[in-house]
Formats: sequence, C-alpha cells, structure tokens
Amino acid sequence: MNFISDNAYGAAPQILKALTEAAEGAMTSYGDDAITARLSAKLASIFERDVAAFPVVTGTAANALALATICPPYGAVLCHESSHIAVDECGAPEFFTGGAKLALLEGANAKLTPAILERGLQRFGSGVHSAKPSAISITQATELGTIYSLAQIEAIANVAHGHGMTLHMDGARFANALVTLGCSPAEMTWKAGVDALSFGATKNGALCAEAVIFFDRTRAEEFEYRRKKAGHLVSKMRFISAQLDAYLKDDLWLANARRANALAKTLGDGLAAISGVTLASPVEANGVFAWMPGPLAARLRKEGATFYDWTREPERVMARLVVSFATPEADVAKFIAVAKS
Amino acid sequence: MNFISDNAYGAAPQILKALTEAAEGAMTSYGDDAITARLSAKLASIFERDVAAFPVVTGTAANALALATICPPYGAVLCHESSHIAVDECGAPEFFTGGAKLALLEGANAKLTPAILERGLQRFGSGVHSAKPSAISITQATELGTIYSLAQIEAIANVAHGHGMTLHMDGARFANALVTLGCSPAEMTWKAGVDALSFGATKNGALCAEAVIFFDRTRAEEFEYRRKKAGHLVSKMRFISAQLDAYLKDDLWLANARRANALAKTLGDGLAAISGVTLASPVEANGVFAWMPGPLAARLRKEGATFYDWTREPERVMARLVVSFATPEADVAKFIAVAKS
Amino acid sequence: MNFISDNAYGAAPQILKALTEAAEGAMTSYGDDAITARLSAKLASIFERDVAAFPVVTGTAANALALATICPPYGAVLCHESSHIAVDECGAPEFFTGGAKLALLEGANAKLTPAILERGLQRFGSGVHSAKPSAISITQATELGTIYSLAQIEAIANVAHGHGMTLHMDGARFANALVTLGCSPAEMTWKAGVDALSFGATKNGALCAEAVIFFDRTRAEEFEYRRKKAGHLVSKMRFISAQLDAYLKDDLWLANARRANALAKTLGDGLAAISGVTLASPVEANGVFAWMPGPLAARLRKEGATFYDWTREPERVMARLVVSFATPEADVAKFIAVAKS
Amino acid sequence: MNFISDNAYGAAPQILKALTEAAEGAMTSYGDDAITARLSAKLASIFERDVAAFPVVTGTAANALALATICPPYGAVLCHESSHIAVDECGAPEFFTGGAKLALLEGANAKLTPAILERGLQRFGSGVHSAKPSAISITQATELGTIYSLAQIEAIANVAHGHGMTLHMDGARFANALVTLGCSPAEMTWKAGVDALSFGATKNGALCAEAVIFFDRTRAEEFEYRRKKAGHLVSKMRFISAQLDAYLKDDLWLANARRANALAKTLGDGLAAISGVTLASPVEANGVFAWMPGPLAARLRKEGATFYDWTREPERVMARLVVSFATPEADVAKFIAVAKS
Repeated sequence: MNFISDNAYGAAPQILKALTEAAEGAMTSYGDDAITARLSAKLASIFERDVAAFPVVTGTAANALALATICPPYGAVLCHESSHIAVDECGAPEFFTGGAKLALLEGANAKLTPAILERGLQRFGSGVHSAKPSAISITQATELGTIYSLAQIEAIANVAHGHGMTLHMDGARFANALVTLGCSPAEMTWKAGVDALSFGATKNGALCAEAVIFFDRTRAEEFEYRRKKAGHLVSKMRFISAQLDAYLKDDLWLANARRANALAKTLGDGLAAISGVTLASPVEANGVFAWMPGPLAARLRKEGATFYDWTREPERVMARLVVSFATPEADVAKFIAVAKS
Repeated sequence: MNFISDNAYGAAPQILKALTEAAEGAMTSYGDDAITARLSAKLASIFERDVAAFPVVTGTAANALALATICPPYGAVLCHESSHIAVDECGAPEFFTGGAKLALLEGANAKLTPAILERGLQRFGSGVHSAKPSAISITQATELGTIYSLAQIEAIANVAHGHGMTLHMDGARFANALVTLGCSPAEMTWKAGVDALSFGATKNGALCAEAVIFFDRTRAEEFEYRRKKAGHLVSKMRFISAQLDAYLKDDLWLANARRANALAKTLGDGLAAISGVTLASPVEANGVFAWMPGPLAARLRKEGATFYDWTREPERVMARLVVSFATPEADVAKFIAVAKS
Repeated sequence: MNFISDNAYGAAPQILKALTEAAEGAMTSYGDDAITARLSAKLASIFERDVAAFPVVTGTAANALALATICPPYGAVLCHESSHIAVDECGAPEFFTGGAKLALLEGANAKLTPAILERGLQRFGSGVHSAKPSAISITQATELGTIYSLAQIEAIANVAHGHGMTLHMDGARFANALVTLGCSPAEMTWKAGVDALSFGATKNGALCAEAVIFFDRTRAEEFEYRRKKAGHLVSKMRFISAQLDAYLKDDLWLANARRANALAKTLGDGLAAISGVTLASPVEANGVFAWMPGPLAARLRKEGATFYDWTREPERVMARLVVSFATPEADVAKFIAVAKS
Repeated sequence: MNFISDNAYGAAPQILKALTEAAEGAMTSYGDDAITARLSAKLASIFERDVAAFPVVTGTAANALALATICPPYGAVLCHESSHIAVDECGAPEFFTGGAKLALLEGANAKLTPAILERGLQRFGSGVHSAKPSAISITQATELGTIYSLAQIEAIANVAHGHGMTLHMDGARFANALVTLGCSPAEMTWKAGVDALSFGATKNGALCAEAVIFFDRTRAEEFEYRRKKAGHLVSKMRFISAQLDAYLKDDLWLANARRANALAKTLGDGLAAISGVTLASPVEANGVFAWMPGPLAARLRKEGATFYDWTREPERVMARLVVSFATPEADVAKFIAVAKS
C-alpha cells in the first residue's frame, strides 16, 4: 500500500518499449534526431499551435530553467507558500535565476487568487531596494491535489500581464488536472494566458521525462543555452524524447491520469465516509489529503501503508495519499478497509 | 558510417533490459532504493574501497557538480585548453561553481604535465586579485583519444596536492582508458591520487547515466545538496542506477570498451597506411584523429561517412573519428576502403 | 524636518577631516596601509580580542558578503520577515551566496526568539529537498528600533550553535544599540555567541564605511576573496579605513549614537503624550515608530516633515521617524509642536 | 619613488574639498540628490548626449556590473589576455554575469584588432555547447599603457555590432587616453561605437569613484537593480557623486591626466636613453613598461623605488612604472638619475 508519492512507481510498459525501439542505430545527438522532431510536432498538434518544447529529466530542472528564462536575477517570482518550487527544490529557482526571490503567498487549497496576488505585490514598492516582480508561478494540479478552473487561471494571467509579469505553470501533474477539467491542453495553458509550462510525465508513467514549453518562441534560444549550461541537455536525447512521445501516443497520458484520478476519488470517498476522518481539500486530481486521528494513521502504517504526514497536530495528522498510474486497485480497497476497521 | 561521436549510438541491450526489470513495483524515490544500494556496493567493490557515488544523467552535470564541490566560487580549475569542461559545456563549471575560473593550459596530445601545471600556477601570484587555484581537472581518455599513464596521473596528483589543490578526473571515456592501461579502477584513480571522478557510461552503452565518485566521503553531503539544487536528483533514481548496475555487470563496460578500442585501432592502422594520411595523435582509446587532404575528407563524406573536422587548414583537415560500443565493424572496413580508393 | 532615514544626513566633521589627513603621500593599496592596520588594532582593542575585520562601503555589501561566507549556496538563513536583508537588499544575500534561501519568520517588535526559531527550523525536515539551515541573522538595533538584550542574543546563539548554525548580527545601528544596553562591544557580540558582525558606521556619521567582523579568523581568507570578487575591495582603502578610524576615535561613535538616541527618546515621549498617537514599539535606539491618524501625518508633511509610512491602514499610518547623529534638535521640537497643534 | 600604481596616491585637494561641502544638511539617499543630478547633467554635457550614468566605488564593480548588464550568463566576453577583467578581478565578471566566460585573446601592445577578434570568434562554432559571444571589452588606455586610436575603436565596434555583440570600454584610465588622443569624450566612445563605459576617476585623483555609463538608456533599469543587488548602491550617494563632480569641474580630470602623462613621457624618454634599457611598449598614457637588467631593477629598489616586475626573465625584467596625478616630479628625476648612474 504505497501512497507516498506518484514517483514511487515504475514506468508504463508502452514507454519502456519505446526506449528499446529508440535504441536502434545511429542518430544525431543533443536533440537533432527524428524522435525529438516527432515529439515536437506532436506537442504542437496537442497544443494547437507552434510551441518551443524542450525535454529535461526532472521537474525541478523544468521549473528552475523555465523560471530562470522568464525572471531576471533581480526579479521575484510570486508563488504559493506550499508550492514545489518553494518547498521541495532546495532553492533551485534561486540558483538558476542567479539569486531571484520567491515571494511566498498564503491561499486556501494551495491556490492563489488575484486578490492574494495584488496584496502580495504591495510588498514591492521601493524601487531597486525590492526585487522586481517578474513572474507568477502556479501549480496545476496543486500540491494539495486541487485544481484551478480555466477562469481562475485566466484571472491570474490577467494580474501577471497587467503588471508586466509572466505566468508559469508547474504542470508536474498536468494530465491529472486536464482530465478533471475535461478541457484541451491549449485551453488550460496559452488560451488562458499561461506563458511557460513545466509539462510533467515522470509522475504519470515515464522514467525521467518532462518538457518545458514556451508559447512564445522567442524564449527558445535563451532556454537552450541555459539547459546546456545547467547540464540538462542529454546527449542521447532520443531516449528522453521517446518517453514523451510514447506518453502522448494513443492518449496514454490521459488514460493513466484518468485511472489515477478515479482511484483517488474512490480513496477519498471511502475515507470521507469514515467517522473521524475528514478531507482537508477536495479530491480533484490524484492526491487525497485527509485528516485522521494519530492512532488511525499509526494503524494504517502498521498494516503496511506508506504515506506522508503533511501536517501534524497533537491529536491528528493530515495524511497525504498519492495515487499513481500504477497503484494497484487492491491497495486502495485495502487501505479503506483497514481505515474502516 | 557514423563516426561523429560515441553518443550517436543507442544503448546496450543488457542495459535496456535492466530498465524494464527495474520498472516493477513501488520503490522509495530519490536514490533510497535497492538498485541504487546494489550499485553503490558494486562501485565500492570495483574501486576496492568505500566511495561516495552519485548517479547523474549527463557528463556536463557530472563534471560541473564535481568541480563545484571541490572549487570555491573564487577558485580556479587548471585544465587543458581542449578539455570538455572548457570547450563543450557552455560554461557549466563557471555556473555551478558560482563564477570560478578555468585556467586553460596548452599541452601536447591534449595532456597536462607537471611542468605545464607549475608554469600555469605562476599566473596566480597576486593574492585575492587572482582566483585561488583550487583544482586540477584531467580527462582520461583525453579529447584527442590519448591516455595518461598511471605515473603521469600520480605526478599530476602530486602537483595538485602539493599546492593544496584537488584532482578531478573527467572519465567520460573511463572504460576506454582503463582497458588500454590494463590496470584496476583503483589504480587509475585514488591510488594515483585522484580525488573526484566523473565516471562515464553514456558514451559506452548507457542511455543517460554517469556517476560522480568521491574517494573522500566527507564531500558527500555537499554534493547531494548541490545535485538536488541543480535539478539533477532524478526522482525515479532506480532507472539511472539500473543502467549503471547493468553496465558494470558481467564486465559489460569493459567488453564494450575493448570492442570500441579495437575497432579504433583497426581504423587508425588502416588510415595510417594510406599515403597522405597521418595520425595526429596515437590511437590509445576509441578515437582516431587523422590529418587528411581536404578532397579525401570530402570524398568520404560523399560516400556517407560522418565525422567532425577537429581542425581545418587550407590544404588539409584533422578528422575526428570516434568508434562506439556499437559501431558496425563493416563501417570501419568500408571507411578504410573508401579512403584507400 | 527630515526623519526619513539616518542616511539622509551627511558626515561627521571629524571623519571628513580624517579623509583629508589620509590623503597625504603614497601608500600601499588594497588595505596593506598604516591606517587600515591602525584600524584593525583599534577594533581588536574595542572587541577585546583578535578579530578579522574588513572595511566595505555599504551595509548591503557587509551583510551579503558576511552571509555568503557562512552560508553555502544550498543553505538557508533564518531571519525576521522585516529584516533589512529580507526586505531592502534586492536579494543581495541570495546573489552573493549563490542562491541560498532566507527563511522569513514573524516575531513581535521585529525580534526573533528561540521558540520562533525552533518552529522555523521545523520547515526543514526533508533532507536535500529543503535548503540546509546554516545561519541565523538578527538585527541590532532592529528595523523597529528595538534592541535584543544580552540574554536574548545568547539564547539565540545557543539555538544557532545547537543546530550547527552560525550567528550573524546586522549591526547597521550597532552603536545605537550598544549605548542603550550600556555594555561592551565584546559583550554584545562574541561573548554572547555572535560569530559574524556587520558593523555599521555610515548611518551614524561616516560617508560610506562599514566593517565585516569575524570573531573566528579562519573565515578571513574566504571573505577576502569574496570581497574582491564582488568588487568591494576598494583600492585606496585608506579612505574607508580612515572613516572607521575617526569614527572610533575619542568615542565619537558612542557620542553620536547617544545624541541620536536621546533625541529619539524626546521625540517618542513627545508623540506618546499626544492624544490619538501611540508608539508601535518601544523607543530603544534612534527610531520612533508611531501610529497616528492619517490627517495628522498629512499635516506634518505639509509643515515640511519627511518620513516613511511603515504601514498604512484605512484610518491611520505607522510613521517611521529616524533620528540621526546630525538631526537638528529644533526639528524634533518642531515636529512635536506641529503634531500637538 | 613610488611607481607601483596610480592608486598608491591619495586624492586631489579639490575633490576632498567637495566632500566637505557635500556633507552639509539632509538630502535624499541612494542617488536622488542634487549633487548626483548635477553630475548627470555634467556627464551628458561632456558626452554631448543623454547618457545613463551610475556612480560606483571600484573599477572592478564598474566593469563587472557593466558586463553583467550586456552579457547573459551563457555568454562570452572577448577580451585581451592581459586585461584587468581577466587578470586582476578574481573572476568578478564571471560572478556578476552568473557564469559567463571570458575568451582571452593575444595581441601586441595589449591591444585587440578586428583580425584577432574574428579569429577568436571561430572558437564559438558549436551552438549551445559553446558560450554565446555577447560582448567585446577593450581597455583604454590599455594595461601596457598604450592607446587605441579612434579608427581602431571604430573597427572593433564594427566587429562587435556585426556579430550582434556589445562593445564595452574599461576606461579606468579614460582621461589619460583622452588627452593623448586630443579628441572629445564623445568621439572616443559612442561616436566610435562604444556601448558601455567604465569611466574611471579613482586612479586620477578621486578617493573611490567610478561611473558606469551606458549610451543606450534602455540598459538603465537593469543596471540599477544589479547595482543594488550587488551592494554597490551607496546610501549617501552624494559623496560619490561629489567626487566625480569635482573631478570634472574646471577640467581637473584633464589637467591631472596631462600632468601624469607628461611625467610618464619624461620617465620613458629618460629610461630609453639608457644603455641596456628598452621600452616594451610606447609610452602613450601614464605607464612606462621598460625592460632592464635584473641588477638595475634591484639597484633602483635599493634606492627606494617601488614598482612591479610585469614579466621576469632570467637576465632581465620588464618593469611597470606608473605615474599618477600626484607623483612628485622629483621622484621621476631621481629614478632616471639612479638608473643612469
């Protein structure tokens, strides 16, 4: 019963197979190969426009490289205080930008709102003594498993652009959000005003593959230099591109996400029905955040469940339970059963 | 007839198979898994001592992270002017160190010597006005396909340590050098005074796998933080470790290197026997550097050969021909045949 | 009636005179001169021990260089959310450290406490995914004009050292705090556990002179390299050292601070006696923070007073009134009189 | 007989006097004061156009901040191998740019030429694997006391602009070059194609004052943020501006430079007339570089002369003798006399 993270599971068979196929013969290195070209075309098709897309191997690299491309060293990125870039990346954004600041903002359900952002911007009033607000970063789905609606994204984009800032979306769980909204990738990104996207695949079935996508191609040259300078330009690029290519093929990414989300819903519903357990946030993607008494958490662990305590209080814990593309259905059922018992 | 680079070829079947095996089930992320533990044990065994070993996905990351761990922002790394860190990494060492300098030194066959290093150190005489010489980096095998003998490495290590510096070895083609010398990995590294090693596997059969190895475990904590902060801590680490594990299993790495070196020898011998062609450096690993008339180079390309002009002169070019673990024997034979005709 | 900052005033005549005297003849550059040597001896005497002291020209440089010397790129500095390093330095600490994080903590009267720090440290629980808590920085006197007692400093130092961290003190208004406590410089620093000090002089009578002081001389080499690399090693160092030398001579620094503090006390008492005005924090140094109705603030400005609104609310503002070594007594009297009327 | 550097001497009396005058009363900090405004107007007048000018306190800061504004982290700055930015700044340009590279080029008399630059550019052929050539930096007067003619500057500017690069001039000894050429500041800079200038005053009579000047005002915002983030925005800016203001008033800067140059000419002529002494480069500014037998150098030092050995050979040394605005005439005469005897 591993619910510790969606990156605790391996890789989808279709993606593994693609790697073996990609291994054949000699190809040009560093991304000038046919598989990467095919991937680029596929992304352009999925996003319904020309995009500048760059494979990398980690979400931290995707985020930090994207932010460094849109935020100067003397800039600030406004983000939620619980965002991955703020909490889980050991200061990668600060490193890649050359010392920019993350301005941490509070908000219910791990989400920002225009009002929160406008208040946050008031911190920056003193010319060069403050960092220059340069970008907003939102996470879709969020670190609490919640989802921005298209209207919410658009409203945030308006704040960003109204203040001369750029909007970045950390889409480590992009597919999970997309299938919930039931909209198109274009609608969830550039049509709503997103300028730069970290498009995740690792958590949803790849081995190590993400893509940074800019909807404005003029960012491309700078990004390519930064990716190389950061050691993130993989020589045998075909093997990263092939993962993404297989991920997108035949809607594998959407199927994987739908499966994980559905199981998470089942898990959330099952837990919510248990006396003493309450959901901390609505289950809108593949994560379940549930308050439960400490003894219950302990019992679940004793029975073999693994998960994080997202927050600990004297009497209770908020458990984070993440369901992946490959989490066994039986594990979900068993977890609920143990919790009930 | 692709001789453009050893990273133009795919991946060894054994390594691909290992990926599929590694994909099974749930595991702890970020390196705290059984495959990574097995790899660490294997590396300790191969190097005949406890080592701190860290998988990463590119050689540039390996080099730049290693150098940042041993050279402060105000330091200088002495290296050959043709070294990969100086020429091919877009300033990654400068970025990762926070602005350290590479001091570029000339030397025959792309190799440094104690005398060259001592002369190079004389540039640094003015206290804090100069950067502080902090590390020496050598490449084994070198960018011209040559090899340092154990005595040569040891002599350079003595210069490094005598001046309070650390010795780094860029071993992107470590196996190719090792099988030529016929020594043990321990002899070619820490027993000769190497402190930090970029241990390459990608060019010799992996998809995207290198390891940074410190022979002094006290470097480990700093390196781990730096790797994470640089976005180089892969979440599903099992997939990087599994490549290295398979690479080392049953001496695959040595077999691959022997094959490539032998073919390179054949290619070099074949070319050297042709009138008008001369080898620019001895063929000691898997690279052949050959001066040839411009028209010959053009004819070879017309027949389908791909390779770099390492140096261009009005009448002739120095062709770089790199043989990989998977280069077809027939391609070597054909290349020689075309050159002869 | 300029109360906008203590750096709005010029320089003490004794310090200007010292510059003219220092201009005579040829001297060794970059700090190897007699005046700098005299200053070092004077600081050692004042601090009752050998210290490594380095003149620089701004407080931001002093803080950021000091922090970069004690906090690695992957580290975090715990500090108050209102601290100058967090709010007023445009991310200089992040830049100089190579991307370290400032962990911002709340606390009454702009002060940290051991309990606040211990709670803050709980954010850092996840190994290399979080930055490594490496330093604590406190401001003495604080940005709200308050002062840490010796016992409070010592308690914070114990938290720092107990967690393997280093304690930095931003002493931009060191003298103002010192004369309030009536203790020795040694007592307010290393005897209480402070490891690194930004010793300010500019706000209290110098033109552009601060000193970074380490009580552990092993920091010296690294700091000297960092200072040079940051362009903060002044060639004609005699002119910075001479300012500090004159500042310390005949207790000028203490006299200036006493004067400013006394005037601030007068100003604070005068305002506190006015109906509708309340002090936001106790007046312990040379700053007065007073809540007053918006119309009163407007009237004061109309009469020629300048000051910052530290906080604005619909009905009232918190005015920051800073008194310097050179603020005319008449301005203080007039300000109170206008406020009363 | 101090000929070690032009920064070994103090400050011009007119500049010291200006400091005392500038100390009066309260002013806005951080450059929003009347003296800084007056300086900006004066620089605009001297350069015959609107300029964005920013006082800083060291030449290293001026150079590194200017370069960081015109060269991205993944860029390269082409410069002479003997340039101050390459040799004497402990890697400040690398630090401020976030890891850009200096591409070091050889050239007679410490000067670059279009041919040298075009050859240097050929190193950068491999896309993102190399740094991106982004700027050229020349020194006027050079580190060997020589001077670029207007035509030479213009030819270099054409190379820069033809390759999409920016031209920076390190004018630490700007005045010394200007009076030799007998041209206008405009002619020696923007009219010849210079984009960014480090305008030196410290070596020629100021205490600690340089200005970074951009002839394209769109650089201003970025520079101001960078200056602040680097701790180089002096709070009591009036005191830096006042130095520059007095430096430019009544042509003090030109008079000081003429005096130093004339004495250097005298010194050079005197030495060149001595058997066994030869000038290593023409005396075109305030530096004399003279080859002399080792014993002669030793004798001069025994008689009290101080100077650097710029180069040492077994039989002879190249002495660097720098004359400042304040070097006593008698010292020059005595030095020649001792050398002759």
